[in-house]
Amino acid sequence: MEKLVVVDNLWTGLRENLAHIQDPRLTFVEADAERFSSDFQFDEIIHFASPASPPWYMREPVRTISANLGGALNLLNLLKPKGRFSFASTSEVYGDPLVSPQPESYRGSVDCTGPRSSYDESKRCTESLLFESHRTTGIDVRIVRLFNVYGPRTRPDDGRAVSNFLSQALTHGELTVYGDGSQGRSWGYVDDIVEALSRYFWRDELTYVGPLNIGNDREISVIDVARYIEKLVPGTRIKFCPPVPQDPTNRRPDLTLCRKVLPGWEANVSYEDGVRMTLEWFRDKVGQGASTDAPSPVFDTRLAAPV
Amino acid sequence: MEKLVVVDNLWTGLRENLAHIQDPRLTFVEADAERFSSDFQFDEIIHFASPASPPWYMREPVRTISANLGGALNLLNLLKPKGRFSFASTSEVYGDPLVSPQPESYRGSVDCTGPRSSYDESKRCTESLLFESHRTTGIDVRIVRLFNVYGPRTRPDDGRAVSNFLSQALTHGELTVYGDGSQGRSWGYVDDIVEALSRYFWRDELTYVGPLNIGNDREISVIDVARYIEKLVPGTRIKFCPPVPQDPTNRRPDLTLCRKVLPGWEANVSYEDGVRMTLEWFRDKVGQGASTDAPSPVFDTRLAAPV
Repeated sequence: MEKLVVVDNLWTGLRENLAHIQDPRLTFVEADAERFSSDFQFDEIIHFASPASPPWYMREPVRTISANLGGALNLLNLLKPKGRFSFASTSEVYGDPLVSPQPESYRGSVDCTGPRSSYDESKRCTESLLFESHRTTGIDVRIVRLFNVYGPRTRPDDGRAVSNFLSQALTHGELTVYGDGSQGRSWGYVDDIVEALSRYFWRDELTYVGPLNIGNDREISVIDVARYIEKLVPGTRIKFCPPVPQDPTNRRPDLTLCRKVLPGWEANVSYEDGVRMTLEWFRDKVGQGASTDAPSPVFDTRLAAPV
Repeated sequence: MEKLVVVDNLWTGLRENLAHIQDPRLTFVEADAERFSSDFQFDEIIHFASPASPPWYMREPVRTISANLGGALNLLNLLKPKGRFSFASTSEVYGDPLVSPQPESYRGSVDCTGPRSSYDESKRCTESLLFESHRTTGIDVRIVRLFNVYGPRTRPDDGRAVSNFLSQALTHGELTVYGDGSQGRSWGYVDDIVEALSRYFWRDELTYVGPLNIGNDREISVIDVARYIEKLVPGTRIKFCPPVPQDPTNRRPDLTLCRKVLPGWEANVSYEDGVRMTLEWFRDKVGQGASTDAPSPVFDTRLAAPV
């Protein structure tokens, strides 16, 4: 029988997100990716073990680097020779990009000493680890660079824009926009993104070796999403807060390569529809009393300052 | 009594390089940085555990990433609270730079999936790990970005330009230049660089927090060094070979910050003098029969290619 082992330390994941799956092939193990051990050698490993929300990774940067890189180093030992290793990388490998849209060949503009660097750099370095493992040992590597995924089953206290706005709209009604809200993002609804992942990770014949942008290439500013939610949920209003250090100004995937590698796939769900469906899910959760307070990161702007 | 523990797995280091030091405070431990354990908590840790020569790190990229990042993650556990952690980063964090000279604020141009990435990205990510540890736990971090260090006690089979040319000049006489040799480098003689390190790592009052370029800012092309050695050692000749993939075209430190943080320090040894002194040392070594063959990296140019 085929066997699927889900490993999660539940740092940011929620056990209840698997509650609807009843399948004898599925085993859940509560463990850190960097310490999980097994007597099995796996045909395929999908490494998604990392927080993805800035307040979470900025509060525990060492643990974030350890999850991504320590996780990949450990899990590589559990892969069969020539097995397949898939990894969720991120549009943050492009940093605050100087070209738009961003093709996979763009080398990025990341401050490797900055307050977002634990996430950005550990994703970059894990990409390196896996492509270099491919080059030297012949493993099959599938790396996706994901652009701002959102949707149902996000933690209400996740801390990223859509979930923040929805949690706030459903509680005190004050939507916090950092800076002037003009920063552009490409909002990918979870169903669209998961469809792309399953097509890419499980496609057997593939000549392309390299990272693949996955996302919705319609770029919408943060303030536009806030205004849309303001209209959707009566009684909400927008509050402007100081900008977050090194928040990227823009972010939009060049999907040329994606359309070649995954012909027929498109991100079909508009942000208007996606946000509305996510709102329904959040209404239930927040109604049931879920926490909506994301952790506060520790900022120290001295790091970015000159002498 | 103060105690100095040197940890080295002798992957690229040589035990004999410490043979001239007789000091009861010094202990040598043969171990991997990522697995070294101790009952002590250290006041100060200096993490230099990584190969620095492309043929060595390209042949064992996973081990290179593990040495840098696994090393730093492990060693952080052995540091006293608020202790000092120093780290040898590299000019390779700038990749193939689009600005010259390179200031510390330049975010670099590194292909995180390329054949040099195990070194470049693990240095970048270790910088992130340490500055983020500073931000969240208050440890004192000293990171230097070193530009092409050379000199006596380099392995004759190290594989970088100066040691390659000298090993070749003293054996078969054929100096291999990759590409047309026009790539510019900043050659820092080891005594100059070590002087800068000791001044930076052991300076107690310091307000600057951030990475520091250390090097010689006189940029000299590879072919000029080869021609100089051709003249120094009678009977040698230059042989041109295909370029190495993603070999940076230029490399020169902006030392503005360095001159503020380390007033009075300069790289005083010219490449002409430094190469001559290194030649003397190599003459003894090669005369004693040291191996001069660097490992061959595994190249697979598919990685850099589009669909």
